[in-house]
Amino acid sequence: MTPMSERLIMHDAPLFNTLAVIGPGLIGSSILRRAQQTQTLARRLIAIDHSPNVIERVRHLGIADHATSSLINGVKEADFVILCIPTGAVASVAKHIIPHMKASSILSDVASVRHSLAQQIVPHLSRDISFVPAHPMAGTEYSGPDAGFSTLFENRWCLLIPPEGTQPAAITRVEQFWQQCGAKTRQVDEQYHDQICAMVSHLPHLLAFTICDTADRLSSDLRSDVLEYAASGFRDFTRIAASDPIMWRDIFLANQDILLQTLERFQNETNKMAEAIRTNNTEEIIDRIKRGRHIRQGLIANQQN
Amino acid sequence: MTPMSERLIMHDAPLFNTLAVIGPGLIGSSILRRAQQTQTLARRLIAIDHSPNVIERVRHLGIADHATSSLINGVKEADFVILCIPTGAVASVAKHIIPHMKASSILSDVASVRHSLAQQIVPHLSRDISFVPAHPMAGTEYSGPDAGFSTLFENRWCLLIPPEGTQPAAITRVEQFWQQCGAKTRQVDEQYHDQICAMVSHLPHLLAFTICDTADRLSSDLRSDVLEYAASGFRDFTRIAASDPIMWRDIFLANQDILLQTLERFQNETNKMAEAIRTNNTEEIIDRIKRGRHIRQGLIANQQN
Repeated sequence: MTPMSERLIMHDAPLFNTLAVIGPGLIGSSILRRAQQTQTLARRLIAIDHSPNVIERVRHLGIADHATSSLINGVKEADFVILCIPTGAVASVAKHIIPHMKASSILSDVASVRHSLAQQIVPHLSRDISFVPAHPMAGTEYSGPDAGFSTLFENRWCLLIPPEGTQPAAITRVEQFWQQCGAKTRQVDEQYHDQICAMVSHLPHLLAFTICDTADRLSSDLRSDVLEYAASGFRDFTRIAASDPIMWRDIFLANQDILLQTLERFQNETNKMAEAIRTNNTEEIIDRIKRGRHIRQGLIANQQN
Repeated sequence: MTPMSERLIMHDAPLFNTLAVIGPGLIGSSILRRAQQTQTLARRLIAIDHSPNVIERVRHLGIADHATSSLINGVKEADFVILCIPTGAVASVAKHIIPHMKASSILSDVASVRHSLAQQIVPHLSRDISFVPAHPMAGTEYSGPDAGFSTLFENRWCLLIPPEGTQPAAITRVEQFWQQCGAKTRQVDEQYHDQICAMVSHLPHLLAFTICDTADRLSSDLRSDVLEYAASGFRDFTRIAASDPIMWRDIFLANQDILLQTLERFQNETNKMAEAIRTNNTEEIIDRIKRGRHIRQGLIANQQN
């Protein structure tokens, strides 16, 4: 049972004094909107981005108290800094800002691939700064500060991947932060995280980009008819192929090994399905369709539909 | 300009006296619902199915004037008969009913693969019966008489694939039928139809079934977590994998050659993407993602989003 005094503090005071979001895109701007709406996450909101256009949009949208292109000025007063930038940039930006962060502050990121990230960042931590990465499993195919919304994380999972030896108090605060964003939280290890994400997110994106690419390489009359008749499966299937190219290049590269292994499993199953079709093996085709359908029905039962 | 008398007939009298729908599933029951709602398609609606459960559901839903399990009794008074049954059953059921159909009536089906179907059916036509197949490019992942709804075809394409030598008047009536169902119509040839559908529908379904199947073969803890975290792409991507197994087995087999060719193109592109990831070829990855994204954006521009 939490003592009454602590419970009062949790409810009355924001979790952090100053929150700095580096990269107020879809995820970052959704965090800012949520913080603004609930007033329980932080007293003061800072948005940091290297792009003047993004800074201008953030100011126009009014979703931060201060918007700046200076990493160092932006982070120096924050007690919680979240990197919401492409996976490939996380380690270098983290190393760059750590020396300028407040003592005892918390650093986090939302990268979709964890492989070796903690390893690259933890040795650079100093002055009691904690690194508590968290990956919210939420998103849309849109990007940029205009794409965010305060309910993006509602009922979604947010996986915490704290490196070994992280202060439990820091983990708890980041967990509370995401719960107040509406998310369900769970701690997992790096390797398991990357396996799960390869299957539920990275492989589907790779396939969606590639089937669109395959369509793009068709003769021009066929291609325009594909667009015309896309309602029959292609449309839903390819929605995620509108996602940001740099973000996805970084994810594919960062999760290279596990993604390629997952792809290989998928290709083996695809080859077996193709062989069953080629040899008119009706039972095998039905069996494969039913197995697939079974998982899909599990999803519906999980109310993820 | 259509003469006034004809225009009045078009608007005042239903297109057909008696419409028989064989297989009142998702598509068939949607046609019946539309006919009931508009009153312009047919005076009398007959539903035919071999399954007593389906007959019972049709009676309960009240979407036909008469529901029967007898093919021969069901079709004998109809001037328009539509087969809404799995692709693999179309030719044999067509051959079975043609001798019992009214002279000068029209036979149609809604099969998603046209390869060799007309060839198997046309030689059996007699007594001025016309065969005018039409493929409505509409559907959901649900099946059965309860899954249909009257607006299913609204603003969707319906491709007409009349065999050479079909009476133009019969083609026109079937075209009007589908237009009154809310669909946009276009005539195409069998081969082109099957190429388009392989890309926009059959390949996406094959991949969706297979990625679900791949997930189903994971170790049980990983599999249950895939279901848990499916929001990140997997969910939308696999919606179509809930579709009917028999229907899809038949489609895969009927469109075997073109589907396997289309799959091969897709696999070649997938292998190139995998190679780009394996060799850290960032430019190639970006190029491939952008090409895919470009097609997806074309879809949005086509207002198919």
